[in-house]
Amino acid sequence: MAGNTIGKLFKLTTFGESHGKAIGGIIDGCPAGIKLNLEEIQNELNRRKPGQSKIVTQRKEPDTVEYYSGIFEGVTTGTPIGFVIHNTNQKSKDYSHIKDVYRPSHADYTYDKKYGVRDYRGGGRSSARETASRVVAGAIAKQFLSKIEINAFTSSVGDIFIDKPYQDLDFSKIESNIIRCPDEVSAQKMISKVEEIKKQGDTIGGTITCVIKNVPVGLGEPVFDKLHAELGKAMLSINAVKGFEYGSGFCGAKMKGSEHNDLFNEDGTTKTNLSGGIQGGISNGMDIYFRVAFKPVATVIQKQDALNSAGEIVEMQGKGRHDPCVVPRAVPIVEAMAALVLADYLLLDRVTRL
Amino acid sequence: MAGNTIGKLFKLTTFGESHGKAIGGIIDGCPAGIKLNLEEIQNELNRRKPGQSKIVTQRKEPDTVEYYSGIFEGVTTGTPIGFVIHNTNQKSKDYSHIKDVYRPSHADYTYDKKYGVRDYRGGGRSSARETASRVVAGAIAKQFLSKIEINAFTSSVGDIFIDKPYQDLDFSKIESNIIRCPDEVSAQKMISKVEEIKKQGDTIGGTITCVIKNVPVGLGEPVFDKLHAELGKAMLSINAVKGFEYGSGFCGAKMKGSEHNDLFNEDGTTKTNLSGGIQGGISNGMDIYFRVAFKPVATVIQKQDALNSAGEIVEMQGKGRHDPCVVPRAVPIVEAMAALVLADYLLLDRVTRL
Amino acid sequence: MAGNTIGKLFKLTTFGESHGKAIGGIIDGCPAGIKLNLEEIQNELNRRKPGQSKIVTQRKEPDTVEYYSGIFEGVTTGTPIGFVIHNTNQKSKDYSHIKDVYRPSHADYTYDKKYGVRDYRGGGRSSARETASRVVAGAIAKQFLSKIEINAFTSSVGDIFIDKPYQDLDFSKIESNIIRCPDEVSAQKMISKVEEIKKQGDTIGGTITCVIKNVPVGLGEPVFDKLHAELGKAMLSINAVKGFEYGSGFCGAKMKGSEHNDLFNEDGTTKTNLSGGIQGGISNGMDIYFRVAFKPVATVIQKQDALNSAGEIVEMQGKGRHDPCVVPRAVPIVEAMAALVLADYLLLDRVTRL
Amino acid sequence: MAGNTIGKLFKLTTFGESHGKAIGGIIDGCPAGIKLNLEEIQNELNRRKPGQSKIVTQRKEPDTVEYYSGIFEGVTTGTPIGFVIHNTNQKSKDYSHIKDVYRPSHADYTYDKKYGVRDYRGGGRSSARETASRVVAGAIAKQFLSKIEINAFTSSVGDIFIDKPYQDLDFSKIESNIIRCPDEVSAQKMISKVEEIKKQGDTIGGTITCVIKNVPVGLGEPVFDKLHAELGKAMLSINAVKGFEYGSGFCGAKMKGSEHNDLFNEDGTTKTNLSGGIQGGISNGMDIYFRVAFKPVATVIQKQDALNSAGEIVEMQGKGRHDPCVVPRAVPIVEAMAALVLADYLLLDRVTRL
Repeated sequence: MAGNTIGKLFKLTTFGESHGKAIGGIIDGCPAGIKLNLEEIQNELNRRKPGQSKIVTQRKEPDTVEYYSGIFEGVTTGTPIGFVIHNTNQKSKDYSHIKDVYRPSHADYTYDKKYGVRDYRGGGRSSARETASRVVAGAIAKQFLSKIEINAFTSSVGDIFIDKPYQDLDFSKIESNIIRCPDEVSAQKMISKVEEIKKQGDTIGGTITCVIKNVPVGLGEPVFDKLHAELGKAMLSINAVKGFEYGSGFCGAKMKGSEHNDLFNEDGTTKTNLSGGIQGGISNGMDIYFRVAFKPVATVIQKQDALNSAGEIVEMQGKGRHDPCVVPRAVPIVEAMAALVLADYLLLDRVTRL
Repeated sequence: MAGNTIGKLFKLTTFGESHGKAIGGIIDGCPAGIKLNLEEIQNELNRRKPGQSKIVTQRKEPDTVEYYSGIFEGVTTGTPIGFVIHNTNQKSKDYSHIKDVYRPSHADYTYDKKYGVRDYRGGGRSSARETASRVVAGAIAKQFLSKIEINAFTSSVGDIFIDKPYQDLDFSKIESNIIRCPDEVSAQKMISKVEEIKKQGDTIGGTITCVIKNVPVGLGEPVFDKLHAELGKAMLSINAVKGFEYGSGFCGAKMKGSEHNDLFNEDGTTKTNLSGGIQGGISNGMDIYFRVAFKPVATVIQKQDALNSAGEIVEMQGKGRHDPCVVPRAVPIVEAMAALVLADYLLLDRVTRL
Repeated sequence: MAGNTIGKLFKLTTFGESHGKAIGGIIDGCPAGIKLNLEEIQNELNRRKPGQSKIVTQRKEPDTVEYYSGIFEGVTTGTPIGFVIHNTNQKSKDYSHIKDVYRPSHADYTYDKKYGVRDYRGGGRSSARETASRVVAGAIAKQFLSKIEINAFTSSVGDIFIDKPYQDLDFSKIESNIIRCPDEVSAQKMISKVEEIKKQGDTIGGTITCVIKNVPVGLGEPVFDKLHAELGKAMLSINAVKGFEYGSGFCGAKMKGSEHNDLFNEDGTTKTNLSGGIQGGISNGMDIYFRVAFKPVATVIQKQDALNSAGEIVEMQGKGRHDPCVVPRAVPIVEAMAALVLADYLLLDRVTRL
Repeated sequence: MAGNTIGKLFKLTTFGESHGKAIGGIIDGCPAGIKLNLEEIQNELNRRKPGQSKIVTQRKEPDTVEYYSGIFEGVTTGTPIGFVIHNTNQKSKDYSHIKDVYRPSHADYTYDKKYGVRDYRGGGRSSARETASRVVAGAIAKQFLSKIEINAFTSSVGDIFIDKPYQDLDFSKIESNIIRCPDEVSAQKMISKVEEIKKQGDTIGGTITCVIKNVPVGLGEPVFDKLHAELGKAMLSINAVKGFEYGSGFCGAKMKGSEHNDLFNEDGTTKTNLSGGIQGGISNGMDIYFRVAFKPVATVIQKQDALNSAGEIVEMQGKGRHDPCVVPRAVPIVEAMAALVLADYLLLDRVTRL
């Protein structure tokens, strides 16, 4: 109820602060009999890891996941999967300067007002470090999804965006550059942009597009738990996300019905896909695609004003090891959240009919 | 689990098909001791009612809500509030032409594939008629929210949009025109646009902006149940919604951190509000504002191709009583969903501290 | 969250006070494609109905169930089933004498202290009238359970009990007498006992035994949601229940392990069944059986002291139309609750394995 | 959904197998601002620990709990409390003899049939070792309950029982003997009984009584989540439990209403307390008391027949380090489960009224 669980049947509950002993989670409801490839899970985690390239934070953390339960001889047993990632690089002293200070556009102020007490080190529970647990769980979910393919990629950084439909992109190239953009020309511009922003001691926002292929028809639970509503919630729960649109999205709001309707082919597929693979909250077998907006990281290296707990405005300066742009490291997080939702809805769909 | 419930403590479960005997719902978790103004609830329902103006569907339904339980001598008792709206204008014969036909961009195909059986009359459970139950529950929630003010309005129709910040608008004028746009000049353009589209036998999309004032600091349950994530899900669960953004939204993805950060005043308020009143998933006391994108209604009067259950493409034509633009009638629905989320989060926040 | 919902996938939410306009409920999660026999559902409701024999309350209520949604052409559609039973015999004046009075061993005092307001007429929400909704939902669940057979019967009234193992009883005789005891000799003694108690203006307790046959192996969700734990909760939620035991029950606490262990046959069945068909919280395919204790009805016709809201002890006297023994009318309620739990666990078990 | 979570607001999710790396859990929803006494939590765990006396299993495990999150400078922060107890004494070789064998009246057979795969070592997830996590969480809950006092004690072993009402017992003596019975005479008889049974290589059942004092009026969520229904479920979820009764319990089923009704005093207390402190599912401020029946431990040292996975009956013999009677070690588990339910219901009650 306090919000640390996602999923109805395939359920993930996470715990952990950025500078506590460990972060981790429990997956309850993972079906029995899945032969897990543990290396692939660690690979996903490595895609999210700090220090992986010159355009992300230079903190170094091994982020090695350990499994405590639920897997026996490499196979899921149907019992809860408890897993842990130990925090090894806390350097708590780094954070004494923010002990009584609320940084602008961070969660310091709201946590303090809500709970009356907080682990202020590195953002504590509000740190995006928590998303590492999501990546682990999402990577396990992916291994349950069989033929469903989930690909996310950076579709814009600042005002630089890919000006092609996703159908013209080669997703196998997503990992070929450090910004995780499958269009090489745009990728290079984006990387230059981030480097330039980084030099300024500033940060920049961006968007991630996610495309899900081979989704069976019938996933989704109307009316409140429509498939896109749950995907939207999952994405909006990621740190720094400000918007979500699927299919035609905000552009669709400018269109006419006669333009927007997706006419059928005889096999039930549609000639166009402005619906984004979901109709009435239920997947129709076409590609599901959506776009997620990330604001610029709030920690800037430039000096700026902050508020302290005594109600005084104080000057502060961010320290050196933050992401100038969150988007490249958020790509695996978006995929993980999509995988968690789809795994859950695949299970939910099993009880639809007699 | 099958998706017809929203809320964790203030919970609404709805039932009903557009052409069954009745629609309605149960509110479980409404606190005891709220003196209800039943007339105000009916007023909200009337704002959503078909036939209220020349630019909405001309169907006529009284949409009178009856209460079966949970209210005694005008006061909530803490027991479940069961309520019902009888369907009086079903005219089931109207729908025989779609019995075996899947209309493009409707939920006919996906419901049939998922459930194997469906009430095809008027969209059945997938009809937006279901949202009447949400409006009833939202209107009850509003009466629990005391000083919190929720105002939604039409901010665009097609490519016509209000080109002012919401702070320059007078919300008391929202109900002064039939499109529910507080800017009179834009309103007239929007109304003309809808009338023109209607004449073409077509439909048009639009956006609704919602502003919530006087929200206490501290509402929101990180990490998965962040306040904006739940608001986003609630909005995305409304029929025809394709996108959600709050605060700076998709524009924020183009900005730099140094521009985007909301600097504090000494009293904890902020000089700007690109955060949209929520930081780290928790309200910070500033206005919450968000924007919701609605696609054009799928039922057009023009002829178009559909698929039948035998796998054949057949020509069909929508019949006369549909909305050319869903947005004006969706304004009270957006408000209702916002009220339901806030009521739930107000209750959730009561258990935050010792 | 306020407690009016049972089930995780096959979910029932009920509403209604004994003297409001109607009681009813919503079943969300009933699979699509079940051809319902509506007459059988009404029959179950008739088994619970007041006025059915000389040893139960002589109130007369038709208790006719109406369906508002979720059933189309006799078949469940997978959408929520909304149903209502109108209250036709409220006679609210009857209850003015208890408006400010807390009857001993009723819920008057606790409801008033908890909620600060209550519908005092006939017990309001705390009335056992609410269980009619459970019987409707349970009867629908039964039609989903296919070969699973649920039989409950009166196993004792006061100190009169059936002194035979259930295996020696003919369940087809349960409905052959008004006390619902399949052993004719015991039944006659029980009926005489109730008649004697009724003459005294008093009431008497009793127990119901329930036997469930043909349960597939594998139902149950350890650790907290063990099958018997959920059955126990379901039974304890019925008005007037004071205890629950399954298999060897309280007698098992006196036994040795060497006596109590159920040795296997080669086909996985067991030679004895002190386990009561459940091991480690999961059904093992043997009969599930349990026993439920009901206290005597609190409303007695004899004069007794009560407390009023001013803190004064006042004399009061129950009025005429109450059950001298709740057990015969509770038999279908016990069956309904068992059916709801099993339907839910059958669905839950579908997501156990890859 | 897979059953490893208990609680609605104060929620515990556990993980872990008896012979995996670790067991543990996450508490989500613990209010912020509770100053925890960690030593008291460890003390509760020590009361459950193997090897603590001559009448319990002689396995030795330190059972030291480590906290990974949710506590900062000794105070709960409102974020999830992740905790772990490492398994140090697994000796997995001990269990090779049961790899393909289903022990009678254990969960081996049902787990294998349900999941198709299992960690057979020491019972895996079905081992009572899991309850150590419950004791940790319950001990944290106790520190939130302030004045509410929970005392459980051994009330019978086999056919030896305390023949006094609980009001005549001195709960401060519960820990004065190894069977945890506050009546010294009965305690000595019980201890002798267990020693005798142990010599026979057999096991014996027993009952635990729990008394909860100083409960505020108003806890409980009718109709399905009545306070005693949730307590019953919590107790029935403990390994080896076969029955639950509260207040008058099964004896109440033999009584008349005129005897059973609890007459009021002017201050709202009652002259008798056959209701067991709960009326209509809501606490009335009187003592809550209930009794829990435990079957004899299934692992006996005597030879007995088992079934193997090939469908053959094989002879097997339990190994040496099992509990001859589970009851003394279960006393802190019963208290922990009661504490978890009460903490949850205290929080739930906060949202009852406007």
